Amino acid sequence: MTAVADTPRPGGGEQSSLRGEPFVFPVRVYYEDTDAAGVVYYANYLKFMERARTEWLAAIGMPLAELEAAHGIVFVVTHADITFRGPARLGDRLDVSVEPLERGRARLLVRQEARRGADVLVAARVTLACLDRAAWKPARIPAPLVEKMT
Amino acid sequence: MTAVADTPRPGGGEQSSLRGEPFVFPVRVYYEDTDAAGVVYYANYLKFMERARTEWLAAIGMPLAELEAAHGIVFVVTHADITFRGPARLGDRLDVSVEPLERGRARLLVRQEARRGADVLVAARVTLACLDRAAWKPARIPAPLVEKMT
Amino acid sequence: MTAVADTPRPGGGEQSSLRGEPFVFPVRVYYEDTDAAGVVYYANYLKFMERARTEWLAAIGMPLAELEAAHGIVFVVTHADITFRGPARLGDRLDVSVEPLERGRARLLVRQEARRGADVLVAARVTLACLDRAAWKPARIPAPLVEKMT
Amino acid sequence: MTAVADTPRPGGGEQSSLRGEPFVFPVRVYYEDTDAAGVVYYANYLKFMERARTEWLAAIGMPLAELEAAHGIVFVVTHADITFRGPARLGDRLDVSVEPLERGRARLLVRQEARRGADVLVAARVTLACLDRAAWKPARIPAPLVEKMT
Repeated sequence: MTAVADTPRPGGGEQSSLRGEPFVFPVRVYYEDTDAAGVVYYANYLKFMERARTEWLAAIGMPLAELEAAHGIVFVVTHADITFRGPARLGDRLDVSVEPLERGRARLLVRQEARRGADVLVAARVTLACLDRAAWKPARIPAPLVEKMT
Repeated sequence: MTAVADTPRPGGGEQSSLRGEPFVFPVRVYYEDTDAAGVVYYANYLKFMERARTEWLAAIGMPLAELEAAHGIVFVVTHADITFRGPARLGDRLDVSVEPLERGRARLLVRQEARRGADVLVAARVTLACLDRAAWKPARIPAPLVEKMT
Repeated sequence: MTAVADTPRPGGGEQSSLRGEPFVFPVRVYYEDTDAAGVVYYANYLKFMERARTEWLAAIGMPLAELEAAHGIVFVVTHADITFRGPARLGDRLDVSVEPLERGRARLLVRQEARRGADVLVAARVTLACLDRAAWKPARIPAPLVEKMT
Repeated sequence: MTAVADTPRPGGGEQSSLRGEPFVFPVRVYYEDTDAAGVVYYANYLKFMERARTEWLAAIGMPLAELEAAHGIVFVVTHADITFRGPARLGDRLDVSVEPLERGRARLLVRQEARRGADVLVAARVTLACLDRAAWKPARIPAPLVEKMT
């Protein structure tokens, strides 16, 4: 996987590196998550990853509801690069991580993994854009959230 | 299954019976619809039924988007009675029907089935409420839709 | 809601009433659970209810994986009667309950609710059949599970 | 988007380029596909793409059921690179394309897009591995399928 952080980007002057302990959120695999091949359906890992991002924002004090109500913004995924290394199965308990890698004015790049014990089953890099909820246009990431992420 | 149509209801004075050929919408079963037991996951039949109701409204000239934009209303399910008689599997082609049984001022009762050929796999009675989209309160079913349903 | 327990059924001789404190499982509402009307999509409550049933079985010492591996059985829903009373929204925390009402040789009737605080948003009666996994035919509920449920 | 085809791979000696008219499959956006932000939930595009791949295989004469029953193989996604350019909304009709780019012994790379009219809303490169269904190990793509893809 190439070092995305090395790529220069427009508006990159405000970028900052964000390194720390990844946030981890546990997920249980239910029938709803599996398919007839007996494994977790591939699209559902994106659900697990969004759950983990949601809980991460809540954990740092910025629940989605507040971002929307107080700041009028939503985060949407603009890019995802996902490697599926091994299958999860019914009843598995997965640990889904969120690790912010890079932050722009209106953009956030996070690394996410779904692990079962020590095995990394799915690894992803997910780019999020901060949008004005009403205009559906890029908006600066709210200052209080920037502070909490640093 | 008891005769729901026999039960008197508030505002029933405006009720009318709606009988005709049921509308039928075809659905293909993909991996996303199945689970690790090798069959269609039970909640997904409710998705199939909502697809059929959506296409039925479009077919009679009242697409959801118009109901919302021009009339400010949405339909929500307030009750569902569903019998799961047999499993559908990956690759199956199902026919999902919609048959309006009863109409109130702000309420609609439909019978729906999911069939594979002649086999009825799932049979349901679904009650829909017409709601004002903004207030999320019961609203009279728009007159043009009532006309089209008759 | 009519008293389902009063209805005589074939093989009812083995039926028994199962009353106790309902099992409760918390569920958080994420974007994946909501729809464009701004509320939880109706089919997704069936997912929440299945999660709660799965955790209930695990809590009484009979995880699904063991039921399948050691006893060769799965539970499938054969009937659901669901009343949707009010909408849940993004970020809500719901309590989803499981209360076994009635048990036959190969059948289980449970009452389930999804509550937000004291408000019952969704109430359901769900009938499950115990099936032989390979033959997909009714199978007696394994004795150890019957014991744990009593 | 980097030229995936330039990357040397194990067993690449058997690789071949596969160019032709992309296969296109229409998808309607229903409530089930949307979320509370009013747009299609990002994970659901992966469902749309899998539907299109399934219909493409059926269209070239190799339905999934036959691949599994006659050849004992399944295709699983091992990598996806997805760019989300713009939102789809309730009622939209999308055209989802499948264009095979590259084929190895047990691997297939396809380009997929979801378009609304001329607008490309989502663009992806999806790598599929051909697996032996029982052993869940890489398996050679069946010769009849290779022929049909050429």
